[in-house]
Amino acid sequence: MTRSSKTRAVDIGGVTVGGGAPVVVQSMTKTDTRDVSATVAQIAELEAEGCELVRVAVPDMEAARAITAIKKAIHIPLIADIHFDHRLALESLKAGVDALRLNPGNITSRQGVARVVAKARARHIPIRIGVNAGSLPKDITEGSLAQRMVSAALREIGFLEGLDFDLIKISLKAFDVPTTVAGYHLMARHTRYPLHVGITEAGPPPAGSIRSAVGIGILLHQGIGDTIRVSLTSPPAEEVRAAWEILKSLNLREHGAVLVSCPTCGRCDVDLQGLVAQVEQRLKNLGSPLKVAVMGCEVNGPGEAREADVGLAAGKGRGVIFKKGEKVRTVTEASFMDDLMAVVAEMEDSNAG
Amino acid sequence: MTRSSKTRAVDIGGVTVGGGAPVVVQSMTKTDTRDVSATVAQIAELEAEGCELVRVAVPDMEAARAITAIKKAIHIPLIADIHFDHRLALESLKAGVDALRLNPGNITSRQGVARVVAKARARHIPIRIGVNAGSLPKDITEGSLAQRMVSAALREIGFLEGLDFDLIKISLKAFDVPTTVAGYHLMARHTRYPLHVGITEAGPPPAGSIRSAVGIGILLHQGIGDTIRVSLTSPPAEEVRAAWEILKSLNLREHGAVLVSCPTCGRCDVDLQGLVAQVEQRLKNLGSPLKVAVMGCEVNGPGEAREADVGLAAGKGRGVIFKKGEKVRTVTEASFMDDLMAVVAEMEDSNAG
Repeated sequence: MTRSSKTRAVDIGGVTVGGGAPVVVQSMTKTDTRDVSATVAQIAELEAEGCELVRVAVPDMEAARAITAIKKAIHIPLIADIHFDHRLALESLKAGVDALRLNPGNITSRQGVARVVAKARARHIPIRIGVNAGSLPKDITEGSLAQRMVSAALREIGFLEGLDFDLIKISLKAFDVPTTVAGYHLMARHTRYPLHVGITEAGPPPAGSIRSAVGIGILLHQGIGDTIRVSLTSPPAEEVRAAWEILKSLNLREHGAVLVSCPTCGRCDVDLQGLVAQVEQRLKNLGSPLKVAVMGCEVNGPGEAREADVGLAAGKGRGVIFKKGEKVRTVTEASFMDDLMAVVAEMEDSNAG
Repeated sequence: MTRSSKTRAVDIGGVTVGGGAPVVVQSMTKTDTRDVSATVAQIAELEAEGCELVRVAVPDMEAARAITAIKKAIHIPLIADIHFDHRLALESLKAGVDALRLNPGNITSRQGVARVVAKARARHIPIRIGVNAGSLPKDITEGSLAQRMVSAALREIGFLEGLDFDLIKISLKAFDVPTTVAGYHLMARHTRYPLHVGITEAGPPPAGSIRSAVGIGILLHQGIGDTIRVSLTSPPAEEVRAAWEILKSLNLREHGAVLVSCPTCGRCDVDLQGLVAQVEQRLKNLGSPLKVAVMGCEVNGPGEAREADVGLAAGKGRGVIFKKGEKVRTVTEASFMDDLMAVVAEMEDSNAG
């Protein structure tokens, strides 16, 4: 897990991507970008979930111009997603966008891209070369799909570098996980530009979240990926929650509580699913990255509860609460929830203090 | 992704695990094992979701004896989960179980384990050495958690081999993904016995599914893992669905339809989330592994729809349906669903014919 430290750093409106910076969580709005209030409202939701960069579609000039008003009302950097027409990128730059995503597969005017690059260079605005398996340049036909994605990116990198531009980020997204992984592997050998990682068109959750977790997880575990976006057919807040869970599962970032709980089995003497659902709800707004274990198992319960910051090992009618490995309270089933949350609150206070 | 072909094969009630066989999906019941009808009903649900091996907790003799009746009423091999007391394993063998899981961390009687192994050997019943981070043998204190899990497994392997027993499967489960991955890596270097892979106490979905997908996905992508269990604080059918999604995302197994759909964005002119939810519902009972794309995007829509077995590229008020890369129908928004499903039905018929 060393590769990300070797990428170059790119600054997007104050957020560093690459160069060993923490992996950045991003998402994209699903509103009509021209509808400023709907778009701003959705970005506010994304911010609340921990989204650190947000992208908006720019299908026409009106959408590009809306960026000015949207920027004023939000608190995270804004990226314009550009396809087909380079003039939408020029207008987005004028509107004050923090970064651009250009699809090399469908923006065909080289002169147009050169004009965009010149303006971006003058304003220090990074450009993501966003390659998609579903919209590759038509003249790139050699090799596997992964190789073609890489070829498309390499050619565009060459073009931008030829214009003395290096504020570059790269993505190579496909639906197929092994193809996507192979593409990023190849890319990581060819370049030090930061990589934006994701599995495209992954579908609705839970299947889409699982597919994304497998693909993004494999790459991050190998140190590939400086920013991630989970693409789901769902409200975008769910994309952000999934992204954070991926990062937390690899200990790459902290973001709120981590809940350890047993699957339950024929040994379990308490309604653990119900209890865990309640605990999860209560932990949602926890600011600190406490690890909380709720175990209904005499096999692994005491062990896991001891390992957590706060742990409940529940048995028939009673349980033991651990705090940082120390047994602190014996509790009865009726008060599992309250006693556990009381210890969580103590821990929060002492962390804050 | 070559390592699994090098493991030995073990037969569990007619299901091959290891030796390059397809990765097997398993789960565990959450009912009281002594309640035969509840346990059988839950196993029937698991079978319907595609569960291929099922495990039950055996906390007491009555649970062990219930195995005989459960076995008669189910259609997949049954595994007894044994902790603390080796006599529960002996009773489970007598009751006709197809395999055992023994926890080397809490079954302390070496003579007892030797008796279990002798009986298992006589009946050709495999034993999983199931190591958990939360219940390691107390005398194994050297090294990292991953190393200690491996040490516990290696010692137990040695003991079983000393008794001339080799129908062995191994698992090393922890909540922490990097620890679990490191443990299996180390284990894979030490042994050719098949590996049962999972992330333990992963919590409720969606967080638990995402954590499991990251951990299991990383290992499977490296060719490690002959059977998987997703452990979720949820009804067990959800564990099986998640396991299949992990395997499908890596193209390791086929299991029903695969749904490709775009996340939607400010370019999308149709209610794609609603449409996708309907399509997903209708595809649920599809037997064949058709890849169906539902795209609302002019950027990647036509490309992805063409790549799928059946694809809809939807735009404002109308769309195009593709079948194996060929445009077959132009459709209006009102009939997106019906026309798409009609082509899916055609494909199913031709696959069946």
